[in-house]
Amino acid sequence: MRLDEDLEEAAGGATGPGPGLRRARAWLSRAVEPGTIDFWRYVEDVGPVEAVRRLRAGAAPERIRALVGARAEEDATLADLARAERCGARLLVPEDDEWPALPLHALTLAVAAEPVGPKGQSDRTTALVPPLALWVRGTGRLDELVDRSVAIVGSRASTAYGEHVAGELGHDLGARDWTVVSGGAFGVDAAAHRGALVAEAPTLAVLACGVDRPYPAAHGALFHRIAETGLLVSEWPPGCAPLRHRFLVRNRLIAALTRGTVVVEAAARSGAQATARRARDLGRQVLIVPGPVTSAMSVGCHELLREEGLGAVLVSSAAQVVEAVGRIGEDLAPPVAGPESARDGLGDVAARVLDACPVRTGVGPERLAAVAGCDVLEVLRALPALELAGLVEWTGTGWRLAPPPKGRGGPGAAA
Amino acid sequence: MRLDEDLEEAAGGATGPGPGLRRARAWLSRAVEPGTIDFWRYVEDVGPVEAVRRLRAGAAPERIRALVGARAEEDATLADLARAERCGARLLVPEDDEWPALPLHALTLAVAAEPVGPKGQSDRTTALVPPLALWVRGTGRLDELVDRSVAIVGSRASTAYGEHVAGELGHDLGARDWTVVSGGAFGVDAAAHRGALVAEAPTLAVLACGVDRPYPAAHGALFHRIAETGLLVSEWPPGCAPLRHRFLVRNRLIAALTRGTVVVEAAARSGAQATARRARDLGRQVLIVPGPVTSAMSVGCHELLREEGLGAVLVSSAAQVVEAVGRIGEDLAPPVAGPESARDGLGDVAARVLDACPVRTGVGPERLAAVAGCDVLEVLRALPALELAGLVEWTGTGWRLAPPPKGRGGPGAAA
Repeated sequence: MRLDEDLEEAAGGATGPGPGLRRARAWLSRAVEPGTIDFWRYVEDVGPVEAVRRLRAGAAPERIRALVGARAEEDATLADLARAERCGARLLVPEDDEWPALPLHALTLAVAAEPVGPKGQSDRTTALVPPLALWVRGTGRLDELVDRSVAIVGSRASTAYGEHVAGELGHDLGARDWTVVSGGAFGVDAAAHRGALVAEAPTLAVLACGVDRPYPAAHGALFHRIAETGLLVSEWPPGCAPLRHRFLVRNRLIAALTRGTVVVEAAARSGAQATARRARDLGRQVLIVPGPVTSAMSVGCHELLREEGLGAVLVSSAAQVVEAVGRIGEDLAPPVAGPESARDGLGDVAARVLDACPVRTGVGPERLAAVAGCDVLEVLRALPALELAGLVEWTGTGWRLAPPPKGRGGPGAAA
Repeated sequence: MRLDEDLEEAAGGATGPGPGLRRARAWLSRAVEPGTIDFWRYVEDVGPVEAVRRLRAGAAPERIRALVGARAEEDATLADLARAERCGARLLVPEDDEWPALPLHALTLAVAAEPVGPKGQSDRTTALVPPLALWVRGTGRLDELVDRSVAIVGSRASTAYGEHVAGELGHDLGARDWTVVSGGAFGVDAAAHRGALVAEAPTLAVLACGVDRPYPAAHGALFHRIAETGLLVSEWPPGCAPLRHRFLVRNRLIAALTRGTVVVEAAARSGAQATARRARDLGRQVLIVPGPVTSAMSVGCHELLREEGLGAVLVSSAAQVVEAVGRIGEDLAPPVAGPESARDGLGDVAARVLDACPVRTGVGPERLAAVAGCDVLEVLRALPALELAGLVEWTGTGWRLAPPPKGRGGPGAAA
């Protein structure tokens, strides 16, 4: 069927996402690079079907036609939809129930704040614009998968440390029924996806290229496993190449779809930093895993933690991530446990008497009082409790320290 | 000369720190453990000379006498002062010009906030009380050394990472004419002192024992080197042992004497954490060096960075430390530099045209326009600048990417 016939039928009043509407959105997703503010606004304004009809008829405003350029003549919609179907993918449109309307609403709010003219408008690589459609491949349902989701992003040139931490976080978040969202790239992204898969949890890779030819090619097996329980997601139609600028445009979706973005390793001035700042702009949690200050791959993380107004929170475990993005009342991380000691909770005098006790030869209470700087009576009052706690012992002629049970520190252990 | 005669002479109206006054302070420094709120208040109230006279005569209030206990009968002042002199040490008293009155004023303010009765009063190990006197050993002048000083504290059970960072910080701060203050302990403390010494900068070790028998004994050579240009400082008279609780009491001085405290490595519930919280209580900067989240020795650092209300700042270099503690207008850390790229600063259209260029076979502007999703005119406008920047080249039949100069990323390098 010709595109124009399908469009006419759709424009004729068919409600719900019929073939005409879906074809219109498919056409739009190839006509202009995603993230273009004015184009998204035009489609919102006249509707997707009418937008395509006018563009193909040359009836759209000049500046909208300029955005589409030579592509207005082309129609690859049937080929794109067929190609998607062949690899187990489908086109999700905002009119579908499965569309993640709630998380993406943050982008609608953000784009409303952009000026009307080109003056002062955000660049396409940074603009927070909702997607016109999403190509998804896999068995998961997008809206359900992103309901409890966290992004894990970071360097492709990650270290063993970064991959270890990303893998652990991915696993532990997956095990807690959180969906790990990442970009499918080498390094931190792949480690996070793999961690989630090990926990048998669905995970979501948001790509900057067609879902039928995911990039990087070396991740073919990984993408296949992701699609088995989770989803590969892209704004670009099948066959599209992972052009450099597309990664920047894609990053806003990773931030928007999730409740928070965890940055595991990032170099200075990296894409992961940009994603973190977008998460903040969208009202999402920005969570940072620190690393050695001697590692270039953690410089970006530390800069984010130092950045005033970003409100980034340091996290070192999945429990702390969940505490930050989870609902209030549930999901609280337990405090980090320190070594417990029988000394803890000793009063001032008791602690001084304990410190006054020698290691070998026992001494009398008067000597203890002189060393501890307190009354003999106070010493006599403190000793029974110290003995009960197994901290001191009576040698027959005086008091001395009891031998440590295991690994108790010597003098200065509390310094 | 007997103590009581010296005291009488001092009480007789001699102004300035004469032998009687100094002996009174020496006696007080042995009579009661430092950090005792009520004792410090009593000495402030009646004066050091009168306090000693009354305590020795049994005329002080009951609760003050109870603090001194059996020590009231003893007098080791001449022996202590002689012992100090033998090891090149002296007793500094608040009446001396060299007394670091300005930094220690924060403790005077803090103790004023403590309740009058014992109810609700801070424990001696946590109370922020000024010292009654300071035994100092070395050639430095205390007030001058601490004027531009930073504390570096951390775990004794440090890792190679912690020692490396502490050493670098100690060195770089020393090289910038900042005095590094620490506790002389194994691990982070020693690495910080050594770093400063390598930079030929004076450094200051605040001890929890007598300056004539610094602890740990294995640091004998280190303490000797510190004393050559800097100072060993202690509230405890010569010969005093490094009892466990004394380290906690000592830590408040490290925090008070310096403009900020840097924690390099700290376990959960460690003394370094306590020092950091005191620094905050005294209005000092709390600066934290992060580490791998997989390291138990960085858990305490990360907890401090997560602690609400602490206002701890992440630092990864001496420049950032100086920026935090330095005077406004001077001492600003340079931003971390990222890799520069000819792509930086390209407009949206130019970036898209660049991404549309193939690697091998050159293509015409029409093809570029179709791939980039823009007008042919825009392509023709963008190409000259891209060529000038060395990013694209004309093959004779079309445009293609110029070969990368060195290490330029492929697709997705910005992700």
